Amino acid sequence: MAVTVDDGQGVTYARGFVAGAVAGGVKHEGTTRLDVAIISSTAEHCHAAGVFTTNQVIAAPCVVTRKHLGKGHLRGIVVNSGNANACTGPQGERDAVAMATAAATLLQVDPHAVAVASTGVIGVPLPMDRLAPAIGRIALSRAGWDDAAPAIMTTDTRPKLAQREIALTDGTVRIGGIAKGAGMIHPNMATLLTFVTTDAHIDSAALRPMLRSAADDSFNAISVDGDTSTNDTLLLLANGASGVHVGAADGSKFLDALSAVCLDLARAVVADGEGVTKVFEVRVTGAASGSDARLAARTITTSNLVKTAIHGADPNWGRILAAAGRSGAKVDAAKATVRIGDQAVFDTGAPRPFDAAAVRAIFAKPEIVIEVDLGLGDSTARAWGTDLSAEYVRINADYTT
Amino acid sequence: MAVTVDDGQGVTYARGFVAGAVAGGVKHEGTTRLDVAIISSTAEHCHAAGVFTTNQVIAAPCVVTRKHLGKGHLRGIVVNSGNANACTGPQGERDAVAMATAAATLLQVDPHAVAVASTGVIGVPLPMDRLAPAIGRIALSRAGWDDAAPAIMTTDTRPKLAQREIALTDGTVRIGGIAKGAGMIHPNMATLLTFVTTDAHIDSAALRPMLRSAADDSFNAISVDGDTSTNDTLLLLANGASGVHVGAADGSKFLDALSAVCLDLARAVVADGEGVTKVFEVRVTGAASGSDARLAARTITTSNLVKTAIHGADPNWGRILAAAGRSGAKVDAAKATVRIGDQAVFDTGAPRPFDAAAVRAIFAKPEIVIEVDLGLGDSTARAWGTDLSAEYVRINADYTT
Repeated sequence: MAVTVDDGQGVTYARGFVAGAVAGGVKHEGTTRLDVAIISSTAEHCHAAGVFTTNQVIAAPCVVTRKHLGKGHLRGIVVNSGNANACTGPQGERDAVAMATAAATLLQVDPHAVAVASTGVIGVPLPMDRLAPAIGRIALSRAGWDDAAPAIMTTDTRPKLAQREIALTDGTVRIGGIAKGAGMIHPNMATLLTFVTTDAHIDSAALRPMLRSAADDSFNAISVDGDTSTNDTLLLLANGASGVHVGAADGSKFLDALSAVCLDLARAVVADGEGVTKVFEVRVTGAASGSDARLAARTITTSNLVKTAIHGADPNWGRILAAAGRSGAKVDAAKATVRIGDQAVFDTGAPRPFDAAAVRAIFAKPEIVIEVDLGLGDSTARAWGTDLSAEYVRINADYTT
Repeated sequence: MAVTVDDGQGVTYARGFVAGAVAGGVKHEGTTRLDVAIISSTAEHCHAAGVFTTNQVIAAPCVVTRKHLGKGHLRGIVVNSGNANACTGPQGERDAVAMATAAATLLQVDPHAVAVASTGVIGVPLPMDRLAPAIGRIALSRAGWDDAAPAIMTTDTRPKLAQREIALTDGTVRIGGIAKGAGMIHPNMATLLTFVTTDAHIDSAALRPMLRSAADDSFNAISVDGDTSTNDTLLLLANGASGVHVGAADGSKFLDALSAVCLDLARAVVADGEGVTKVFEVRVTGAASGSDARLAARTITTSNLVKTAIHGADPNWGRILAAAGRSGAKVDAAKATVRIGDQAVFDTGAPRPFDAAAVRAIFAKPEIVIEVDLGLGDSTARAWGTDLSAEYVRINADYTT
């Protein structure tokens, strides 16, 4: 895509959004590593929606942001990497509010109009003496996506951006976003942060179910390690800068584009997982219900036995079927069929002679598709997982030693 | 323990039980590796109870054994390793019945009095032409535990036995058993097989809830890789050979001994898991309910982040708390306390300065205790897990390559 001076990318792809970042000394004091960013609408307050971690051990920034979202409108988001501000007690909540206040001062808005997100080490207080003044120094621009995307990274190896422009009844709208990945972060867990912006004119009540649906088909369908962070945050801001209303006839088109942006970001997150050498997609068809399909697909992607078999390019289809069988979804082996790439390995209840070398060749590729037809109904689901490598173990065993 | 000529061990520790095994050519044709065993009561039929895999993809021997258990009495068990007879369609069920029939002929009983168990490769028909005659060649004796225990092994590195003798109101009874471990088996999954025998006089209706309770506190509280096999089987046979009835006053004493035998076997299984270098015990206290306590303890033992941290001796207590938080159990971080060995690292909602070197030293030991006090009630639970090593990945990625 050609980028002109005025063009934003990712989180500033939608009109009327700016971003910026500075080195706030959270990751490492005295270095130039970007670790504090702001994403903001230039003029208007935004309609907004959010999806947060389901972990009951929830970080202070998520608590504060949920409260601010309750007011219905946001102007921007302030986010730091290097410290998750989780398990930090009452001081953590005061610090998250102080981050919002510092950003609000810069943006000249009420602190309630600012969302807060953090990712990094848990159980350690934020260095507010460095962080608060750093927030005040952030310069915002359309080109600032280029700083914001890396500033939210922890162990990610590359920034993650996605965007779509779609034609609605009254004109075109843009949706774009940035994400940081499910790589582990020093020293604790796999936080997923995603910020999506759109210049569509659409209110928060309409955004909420759409964001939930888009998240369910993307971020909730990926797994690197099965652990849910204390800080997971997905935020969507709509500033209406396009002047284009999302009418009743446009709803599904807008949702499709939003889902596509979320799925692009989710797949980028999976592909950049720590120690990941391969990504596999599980397509479950023929399930008795949609929830059964999701359950089966997601259980297969989180099975260590499936993940290691794929890492080793070992055509162990029994592990796939067994993972479906323990998922809680209705499964009748006598009706099930399993395909690895184009090779049927188990067909309607019976093992099928297959070309083991061909299956091994499929498993040796960086992207693998596994299909499980449960033969019980019409429901389908997809999920994405990663192989489990010795490198993953090394990375996650050896942080502090 | 001193062993005399008449003394049995493990599955023949209880009076009136015999066992034996031969090389049936299931594991490898033409070798002398023991892979078919029979465990039997010498004279009487036994009261019996069983616990089976919850996987809906259930192997043929489990289907057949559940049917035979429904008749209320068993004389013995025939078991093979090297082939799980799972995902083998209608032929698999016929083969499982044929195994029971071959053992019944040897024991001169009705085939319905014989339970069947299998473990090994899935999706491949049993070599019945070799297996059925091999069953007929098995010689049974009190000393046969020494052949039966290794004959049920797959990738286990050592046989697993446990036993207890207890004094009840009317005399002493014995309980003993053997197990095979949750190491992966070529090429598919982690099957757990456990056979427990007792010479107590106690009927099946009383045995069933006791076995379920004992399993819940032992086999259901261990995790090596979080996958549930298609073949998991736990069987308990009571032949009454001691002549001692388990009276109403003896119930809890008998259950305690049964639970102790099961827990010994379960811990032996965990310690012998593939690629395992350390075992850790999670003690959850202060939970709002028993099911919450079990949920939190078991989720912590299955977290890849916790498992890798323990492997690397990395004092990442945040991972422990986060795993509890996502377990589904009621958790309020403000009330929780986490201890690693004798080191409190998180105390009633706040991180505590701790001696990282001391925690690292605790994590470097082969057995580690982690305590999580949820501060919400009086319920407790324990669970046992293993570290996740690069060796585990290597073993499970490289079966057929």
